[in-house]
Amino acid sequence: MASNSCKSKIISNVLSCLNYKTGKFIIAESKRVGTLYRVIQLSIIGYLVGYVFLSKKSYQAKEESIQSAVITKLKGVAVTNTAESGQMVWEPVDYVIPPQGEAVFFIVTNFIETPNQKLGNCAESPDVPDGHCKGDKDCAKGESVKAGHGFRTGRCLRDNGKSSGTCEIYSWCPIESYHQSQDGHKRMSILREAENFTIFIKNFIRFPKFSFSKANVQDTADKYHLKKCHYDELLEPYCPIFRLGDIVYQTGHSFQDMVLRGGSIGILIKWKCDLDRDHSECKPRYNFTRIDINGSRESTGFNFRHARYYKNESGEVYRTQFKVYGIRINIMVHGKAGKFCIIPTVINIGSGLACIGGGTWLCDWILLYLMKKREFYKDWKFENVKKKDRNLSDITEQYNGSKEDTKQTPEEQLVTDVSTVL
Amino acid sequence: MASNSCKSKIISNVLSCLNYKTGKFIIAESKRVGTLYRVIQLSIIGYLVGYVFLSKKSYQAKEESIQSAVITKLKGVAVTNTAESGQMVWEPVDYVIPPQGEAVFFIVTNFIETPNQKLGNCAESPDVPDGHCKGDKDCAKGESVKAGHGFRTGRCLRDNGKSSGTCEIYSWCPIESYHQSQDGHKRMSILREAENFTIFIKNFIRFPKFSFSKANVQDTADKYHLKKCHYDELLEPYCPIFRLGDIVYQTGHSFQDMVLRGGSIGILIKWKCDLDRDHSECKPRYNFTRIDINGSRESTGFNFRHARYYKNESGEVYRTQFKVYGIRINIMVHGKAGKFCIIPTVINIGSGLACIGGGTWLCDWILLYLMKKREFYKDWKFENVKKKDRNLSDITEQYNGSKEDTKQTPEEQLVTDVSTVL
Amino acid sequence: MASNSCKSKIISNVLSCLNYKTGKFIIAESKRVGTLYRVIQLSIIGYLVGYVFLSKKSYQAKEESIQSAVITKLKGVAVTNTAESGQMVWEPVDYVIPPQGEAVFFIVTNFIETPNQKLGNCAESPDVPDGHCKGDKDCAKGESVKAGHGFRTGRCLRDNGKSSGTCEIYSWCPIESYHQSQDGHKRMSILREAENFTIFIKNFIRFPKFSFSKANVQDTADKYHLKKCHYDELLEPYCPIFRLGDIVYQTGHSFQDMVLRGGSIGILIKWKCDLDRDHSECKPRYNFTRIDINGSRESTGFNFRHARYYKNESGEVYRTQFKVYGIRINIMVHGKAGKFCIIPTVINIGSGLACIGGGTWLCDWILLYLMKKREFYKDWKFENVKKKDRNLSDITEQYNGSKEDTKQTPEEQLVTDVSTVL
Repeated sequence: MASNSCKSKIISNVLSCLNYKTGKFIIAESKRVGTLYRVIQLSIIGYLVGYVFLSKKSYQAKEESIQSAVITKLKGVAVTNTAESGQMVWEPVDYVIPPQGEAVFFIVTNFIETPNQKLGNCAESPDVPDGHCKGDKDCAKGESVKAGHGFRTGRCLRDNGKSSGTCEIYSWCPIESYHQSQDGHKRMSILREAENFTIFIKNFIRFPKFSFSKANVQDTADKYHLKKCHYDELLEPYCPIFRLGDIVYQTGHSFQDMVLRGGSIGILIKWKCDLDRDHSECKPRYNFTRIDINGSRESTGFNFRHARYYKNESGEVYRTQFKVYGIRINIMVHGKAGKFCIIPTVINIGSGLACIGGGTWLCDWILLYLMKKREFYKDWKFENVKKKDRNLSDITEQYNGSKEDTKQTPEEQLVTDVSTVL
Repeated sequence: MASNSCKSKIISNVLSCLNYKTGKFIIAESKRVGTLYRVIQLSIIGYLVGYVFLSKKSYQAKEESIQSAVITKLKGVAVTNTAESGQMVWEPVDYVIPPQGEAVFFIVTNFIETPNQKLGNCAESPDVPDGHCKGDKDCAKGESVKAGHGFRTGRCLRDNGKSSGTCEIYSWCPIESYHQSQDGHKRMSILREAENFTIFIKNFIRFPKFSFSKANVQDTADKYHLKKCHYDELLEPYCPIFRLGDIVYQTGHSFQDMVLRGGSIGILIKWKCDLDRDHSECKPRYNFTRIDINGSRESTGFNFRHARYYKNESGEVYRTQFKVYGIRINIMVHGKAGKFCIIPTVINIGSGLACIGGGTWLCDWILLYLMKKREFYKDWKFENVKKKDRNLSDITEQYNGSKEDTKQTPEEQLVTDVSTVL
Repeated sequence: MASNSCKSKIISNVLSCLNYKTGKFIIAESKRVGTLYRVIQLSIIGYLVGYVFLSKKSYQAKEESIQSAVITKLKGVAVTNTAESGQMVWEPVDYVIPPQGEAVFFIVTNFIETPNQKLGNCAESPDVPDGHCKGDKDCAKGESVKAGHGFRTGRCLRDNGKSSGTCEIYSWCPIESYHQSQDGHKRMSILREAENFTIFIKNFIRFPKFSFSKANVQDTADKYHLKKCHYDELLEPYCPIFRLGDIVYQTGHSFQDMVLRGGSIGILIKWKCDLDRDHSECKPRYNFTRIDINGSRESTGFNFRHARYYKNESGEVYRTQFKVYGIRINIMVHGKAGKFCIIPTVINIGSGLACIGGGTWLCDWILLYLMKKREFYKDWKFENVKKKDRNLSDITEQYNGSKEDTKQTPEEQLVTDVSTVL
């Protein structure tokens, strides 16, 4: 029997568990607070639907750490004519450094050649600030000075009759002449045809979170088109072949100046992909910025030196040093992909709902602390367990008292009733 | 005295602040809505615990921007035998470009050598589409054509008796013969031993958010093992030494074809680390993809040119140009670390709870708008302040008036009572 | 008329929609549960305000995928004196590999020169483990052994009278001597002045999400200062010129050892930008780590080989191979920017509020299941619709019946009333 009553108790518990419990509400006929609440509710729903979901697509899981591989290939030929080397033809193998098609590379557009340098003693370049001397005592032996080209032998070399000269150094001689880079002479060595060099950029990307891969070279049948097209922001936004002149033009800088003194250009490839749509809509956008200029300041250009080493018949090493000015291209890939995911959706909906709940707090606070009838609302909203209890007994009193007298005073009676029965 | 009453007022306010206020609920004995609510509640809790926390580990703060440094070192020797250079031995210093152990490098597997090129005039290669001519008028002086190797001198060079030839150009002569790369001749210069070249990859990573660093080379005592092992997906998944043949095999492409025409392979190193567990469990996984193939299309291979410059006794520059085909390895590192963090935990729990609250809305809506007894529930759920106020006094009136006659009929009275008191 | 009543119905519906509905609460005068609830409430608000918003700035949208371009330029001269090449001057063009100013580069600090290597037959280096032989049978023809330098000719070369030697190989001869790198001899070729080499690092960054760009070279008028300063953690934390000696010192490793055997150093540039503040406060911090050492283990150093190719008068190729030891610098840029955004703010506030709601659940549960007076509270909190319904009619009955006698005793009556009506 005990077991039976236990069973039935469990069953009734389970059943009562399936009763739907819902909060009891009071309707405060305050149109002002009601309107405020509706406004809060609607603006949060509007924010959720309009801004969070439609505009920002926050129902999507986002991936911003992209895997990317870039291959580049240049085409174009230039010719230069210098006193040192005569007429020279420049093919990609000569003007692209390094030649193997990386994402960061340098295109020679101007150069200063210092041929036949050998290790030995010669005068320091007059362009080195600390290289000047008036006597041997200014040239401490074995020292190298900042921005200098070698180590001092201890002698001061002065041209006939001059009072000052430069220290003798042990270095690759002759020293590259800085002056040469300042006068008109250098213009001779510019690769004028650089404007028409073309850069073919192959970019393969992968969003690891979504296992989605793509390349900027389209899977179209029109292979022939790809070989002919040139990138144009409006007409050919997906053509992966770029004219160097166009790239510089799009950065808003002067090609002439850049060719002469060099510069650094970033090509940003942006992949913004909504993977809930058709994957063919995931296409890159290209953007060109000059990145060696900070704010409005003038750039000092971009250059570096490299050398080609030779040996003569007697086994002596000599070299040709090139100071090359040019355009450094830095291809940067940035990707962002989104795909529907339940977690951010729930988070956004949940927190939006919770904020509507927060609106209830605000409205309650206005109702209970700012409204004229606040005390009235307060009494209605909050039911004091004890208070109500008392009132109940008042009512009960009336029932009882309405017929006869009782021995207990009503108050006493209330106390026992409440504290026991309830 | 005012002060006293003020104090006691404050105290009572503080005390009333510590009263626990909790919503009043009505129990609607609708098993259908109650069951629906329990289902919603349980599925959200299940989603939170099972999917969000156990499966997706959303209680963790995630870090996906990894800092990574890669050092590579190749080993292996190959020998080739070409008409131009005879027997040649290829060591890493010869076949790895650049040689300094970067994350992106190129392994020469095939090459076309064009030795002893000098600047001068010669016939354009017949492989250049626009290089053909029937007379001097087809060769405008000083022009360079697309994909051409130099600038036209203005002459059309024709072999004896032939009606067409190619324009003479000023370039590095002789021109590299394209034909050579199409016939069987080139197979002669393949580095057949490339299959056995080994790549040692050292990868150091850091998750800046968690200040966690690790390297793919294990801190084991078994240093000797590391020198002998070869990566194998099943047997040696953590050995950082890779056979080139294995890498190509894992991409699913033909090694023979790749060696001949070149290709680009991405080695993805994936670090997926749960930093709540022991740090030794944070180990990399390797993945190999061919990245120059887009979809099902054939790749055109990968090659570039580089040159070695020489000077003869008279100081004239000449060069050997290599068109190298080979495998470009692009090591990409992707990392993802997670560690317990209170903020995402609270966000997920909070929004889950809020969604349960949203479930209450739905059930209320069903209860109040779809159920048969909707009007009945509505009256119970919502207490109209004004009405009740009025009615309360009505009831009191009735109490008082119960001794006398009331104008309302009992039925009418009931209606007002029900719709208001409850 | 129907239309009129329809209109008025709509109007009354709209008006009732603007009534403010707020939950009815009961005040349970349990100070313990009330205090618990206040503690939960205050700790969640404190967590939200203090930790989430003030400390973690979670009101900001975060961007961690930074776009970065790095340009480096080295300065300094060193001199070495070796038996092979005599006195040599090392300028950046000689010791920086590659020379074009990349983010990852190598500085030669020590080297082994093997001049005048020609293709031909010679004895394998005794340092190659598998190179030793006692007779020709140990040297299978055409084979290349692991870590060997070429292909075996089939002969075993033994010095006069010795019982063992090394296999003859076809390779670039003479073979680089490993022994040379172990004895004191090699110290001769160290670039001692490397400690004073300076590295100028130009770092351009961009946070694509916020379209915010900056460079580590300040836009200050003090251009002259930039040319003179040296980075110092305390005194000059924003100077972008670094002494190589300082860099190694900051990693906590010995410069002498690193110069001798080589090593790999990561320069971490950290941009942590609060874009709600003035943009000039967004400045990089530099950090230096040795990245080729894993845990406490000794590093094996860092080196690679490169070669310079020459041709003699008869057109024969020969080369000088350099095994270079040195410091590989890996500049890694890590950025994190935050800017106020409504979505994460709402998410955090919303989920915090929802967690306070969760606190209500907990307190309710304690109140209704753990407190002594739980049954009492339960009856107050939950109003059973059916029951109450029934009782209401009871009450009404009583009203009506109050004129007559009732069968229930007052006590019984009270019980039912209290347990149900309230």
